[in-house]
Amino acid sequence: MGSAHSSCSLLTTSSTEHFCFPQSPICVSKLRPANQNQIRSIKFTSHSFRCCSSLQNLPSRCNQVGEFETQVKSLKTMADIHGIDQELLNKIVYDALVWSSLHGLVVGDKSVKRSGTVPGVGLVHSPIALLPGSFPETHWKQACELVSIFNELVDRVSLDGKFLQESLSRTKKADDFTSRLLDIHSKMLQMDKKEEIRLGLHRSDYMLDEKTKLLLQVELNTISSSFAGLSQIVSKLHSDLLDQYGEVLGLDSRMIPENNSGKQFAEALAKAWTEYNNPSTVIMIVVQAEERNMYDQHWLSVHLRKRHNVKTIRKTLAEIDREGELQSDGTLLVDGQAVAVVYFRAGYTPIDYPSETEWAARLLVEQSSAVKCPSISYHLAGTKKIQQELAKPNVLERFLDNKEDIAKIRKCFAGLWSLDDKDIVKKAIEAPDLFVMKPQREGGGNNIYGDDVRKTLVRLQKEGNVEDAAYILMQRIFPSVYPTIFVRDGICHKDHAISELGIFGAYLRKKDKVIVNDQCGYLMRTKVSSSNEGGVAAGFAVLDSIYLT
Amino acid sequence: MGSAHSSCSLLTTSSTEHFCFPQSPICVSKLRPANQNQIRSIKFTSHSFRCCSSLQNLPSRCNQVGEFETQVKSLKTMADIHGIDQELLNKIVYDALVWSSLHGLVVGDKSVKRSGTVPGVGLVHSPIALLPGSFPETHWKQACELVSIFNELVDRVSLDGKFLQESLSRTKKADDFTSRLLDIHSKMLQMDKKEEIRLGLHRSDYMLDEKTKLLLQVELNTISSSFAGLSQIVSKLHSDLLDQYGEVLGLDSRMIPENNSGKQFAEALAKAWTEYNNPSTVIMIVVQAEERNMYDQHWLSVHLRKRHNVKTIRKTLAEIDREGELQSDGTLLVDGQAVAVVYFRAGYTPIDYPSETEWAARLLVEQSSAVKCPSISYHLAGTKKIQQELAKPNVLERFLDNKEDIAKIRKCFAGLWSLDDKDIVKKAIEAPDLFVMKPQREGGGNNIYGDDVRKTLVRLQKEGNVEDAAYILMQRIFPSVYPTIFVRDGICHKDHAISELGIFGAYLRKKDKVIVNDQCGYLMRTKVSSSNEGGVAAGFAVLDSIYLT
Repeated sequence: MGSAHSSCSLLTTSSTEHFCFPQSPICVSKLRPANQNQIRSIKFTSHSFRCCSSLQNLPSRCNQVGEFETQVKSLKTMADIHGIDQELLNKIVYDALVWSSLHGLVVGDKSVKRSGTVPGVGLVHSPIALLPGSFPETHWKQACELVSIFNELVDRVSLDGKFLQESLSRTKKADDFTSRLLDIHSKMLQMDKKEEIRLGLHRSDYMLDEKTKLLLQVELNTISSSFAGLSQIVSKLHSDLLDQYGEVLGLDSRMIPENNSGKQFAEALAKAWTEYNNPSTVIMIVVQAEERNMYDQHWLSVHLRKRHNVKTIRKTLAEIDREGELQSDGTLLVDGQAVAVVYFRAGYTPIDYPSETEWAARLLVEQSSAVKCPSISYHLAGTKKIQQELAKPNVLERFLDNKEDIAKIRKCFAGLWSLDDKDIVKKAIEAPDLFVMKPQREGGGNNIYGDDVRKTLVRLQKEGNVEDAAYILMQRIFPSVYPTIFVRDGICHKDHAISELGIFGAYLRKKDKVIVNDQCGYLMRTKVSSSNEGGVAAGFAVLDSIYLT
Repeated sequence: MGSAHSSCSLLTTSSTEHFCFPQSPICVSKLRPANQNQIRSIKFTSHSFRCCSSLQNLPSRCNQVGEFETQVKSLKTMADIHGIDQELLNKIVYDALVWSSLHGLVVGDKSVKRSGTVPGVGLVHSPIALLPGSFPETHWKQACELVSIFNELVDRVSLDGKFLQESLSRTKKADDFTSRLLDIHSKMLQMDKKEEIRLGLHRSDYMLDEKTKLLLQVELNTISSSFAGLSQIVSKLHSDLLDQYGEVLGLDSRMIPENNSGKQFAEALAKAWTEYNNPSTVIMIVVQAEERNMYDQHWLSVHLRKRHNVKTIRKTLAEIDREGELQSDGTLLVDGQAVAVVYFRAGYTPIDYPSETEWAARLLVEQSSAVKCPSISYHLAGTKKIQQELAKPNVLERFLDNKEDIAKIRKCFAGLWSLDDKDIVKKAIEAPDLFVMKPQREGGGNNIYGDDVRKTLVRLQKEGNVEDAAYILMQRIFPSVYPTIFVRDGICHKDHAISELGIFGAYLRKKDKVIVNDQCGYLMRTKVSSSNEGGVAAGFAVLDSIYLT
């Protein structure tokens, strides 16, 4: 399993390249040299740039579907996506931008100061892939099948306090953040605190390894799994575009799997609220003070209110510390309002705890009778170190009974090793390109790739503390590279891309009764293939959906 | 009838006042001295400013509906709206901003350069009134009843070429724009061009005169009647807010009349397309090169595509000149695409005709067999001069047969005079506050109020060309002033306001068969009471809906 997922790292933007026509949407094709065999139909022009005229002046023949039909029929393979007629492309981009604006597929624009705090201002369409990325149906089904097993696994691991404490004991020394989480966890163990209602809203992220054709898990997020709100809308956008242009593109909107991620997460939250069984309570969303991805969260609140008549409030950890109190029966009151469910969209990174105030708030929440999504145990069960522990022989067997389930899960584990495995460290120094070094520190990012793996390991060896270092080693996954059309900030970019498929899962349990154990749609994120880092990628990752092949 | 309506004049913004907390939504109350009797319950503090703390930190007790109930119960009258508890107000504003962002109630932000040309960038919530403005049900019904009569009247006036030419003969000398429109009209008369399918999408704007309690028509827009797309969504926003907060506010969402303006305008356009009877054609929206109100238009396109499977293209007049041609049978081709319906969202102001190119495009369209919305005759029938002519004794009788209809229409006419009426000119010099001078020049704005009326008339008298001047005089309407809460650019403002109610109407006729003659929802626009000009108002006019009382 892996690190907590930053809810807005995907949306971190660098300045976008404007080549011409700065006042209009631009299509830029940036063709990179291929390093993967499967891209056959694209002519590669190393770092060549082509610039089209402005969209505004070019939607003219867009309705003459017949004309394009012969030109782009081969698009069925998706490999030919860069070959879409420029005029048609402009029209699709224009429609995608309009659709996004009208249907709430929006984020806060980094360049507008208030966009992370005041809703309604500084809005910009979410960065998106123009068309869904192809994904093999067999691997899609495999990923879906894993959801309920991982949901159950997290729950069982969370109940084994000793396993969590022991597995993380070395990380505790190296990483202050994990250490603080473990302190809270210890307190709960001492108090013999039981979570009778347990809610998990997870997202398991996978990449498809090109060489082995295996679906490999990158990480499992058990806290603040983001984009359930927006991802559902991206799939709708893609369906709508294929309803319009599918015929001319040779694509069928029915090949985009149904995605109700936002509605389903809201439903799980509502069910947890129902189990808490006090109609005067609310669901509290723990938020960062600034959040440009707020609309992703607001979508869940809207579903909760409109579909389930459940109210939400938004509070930062600092506010919870200031306004929160526990009643004698364990009820969490925040500014006088009883809270049934605490849904963390903050608190997954050290940055969210700038002072003792925030830690006090986290502890207060944990001590309460409110349903925590996640509890401290669920949070710890999602750390990279636990992911690595679970990958060790015979560890899954501690938690799961069904051999088939164990085999299914194990099949998706990439190689994961701690740095006390000397053979692996040696191997990684020799062939650093085959590994990723992941810091134990939570909060995403900071992974080490390529020759830096070698350098870091050599340095740590010299310093004599390889084993204590707050890293794990992971098999580097080489996903398929394929041509994509990125759209961000009103500009479209042709480039080659890799994708990461996240499957949302919800788990709700009250004592012995499993109330929800479901897959809840998915998130496809796609980024320029040349960048290493998961969501960050110098602002080039975009929201996507999948097209089954 | 009156001037063509600028599609984005409402949205012209001046810099908004920020008093504090520049990073968060702010509520500013700016209470003005009352000059109307009906405002009883507000304590007036001349130009006093009150500033609340940031919204972000204050949504805390928002769910404790019970607490507020006693505080604001008197809001039933709407006169007490400024008395809403500040904390509750912050919560409602926050929810309104979120709702607007998620549901496409957006416009292009003036401060973002590309926001008028590239969709999806520089979005900001539409300026809105936080809650619907009260409006007497009797006057609402009266305005609704007038729709079909005005629709019919416009059609009949449009068929009387001689009446149009003669009535506008003096305006032709004074106003080059009207002169050019009349030239096209003359050409069509010479050609004996008949419009067999006639489509009107009008908006009749009214104010409620406080003294006489009469509903008086300000103008009738027969070209580019804007905001049908967004107005429907504002009503939905207000309904949704009252579904949430109605109980605590003492307001009932069912008192907001149903408003399907966008869907109904789209339906009328689709029906005109159907009558044209060529499934391979499109509807062409004639647009300005830059349009920050584009989403209002895009909503119609979305309805046309999703509900009626009709495609739209967007073209400027310059593009139509460049890409347009007439086939021998009169079919209008634009860039090779046959056009069934030409829907003007540009072309109503001289600014849209910077060169002969644009006039050539307008003529080309007029000569074609496409359904024009509006035709040149419909356009001319909506000028202020024609509005004034129709107000003369016995003129309505030329066009309408039913005496009751004539009486109903006449009842809503404000006083309208040409400047050759010496008694009225004298009266206006003596009591300029009772009049508005409206220029014949089309395109909205430039009205003359107060002492400027006297000064202008005296100057024109001295120059000896009062009669030839391109003005009409209109009775000044003094609408009710009432407290409102404005929300624009993420900031809420308490102030006193006046409103203008526009009723959308659609009329579609093929030869003798009237296919559509319907009311199509409404638009309420509300602005700070201290400003004179219709939509502009230094950026303070906002979209609103109505609450029947």
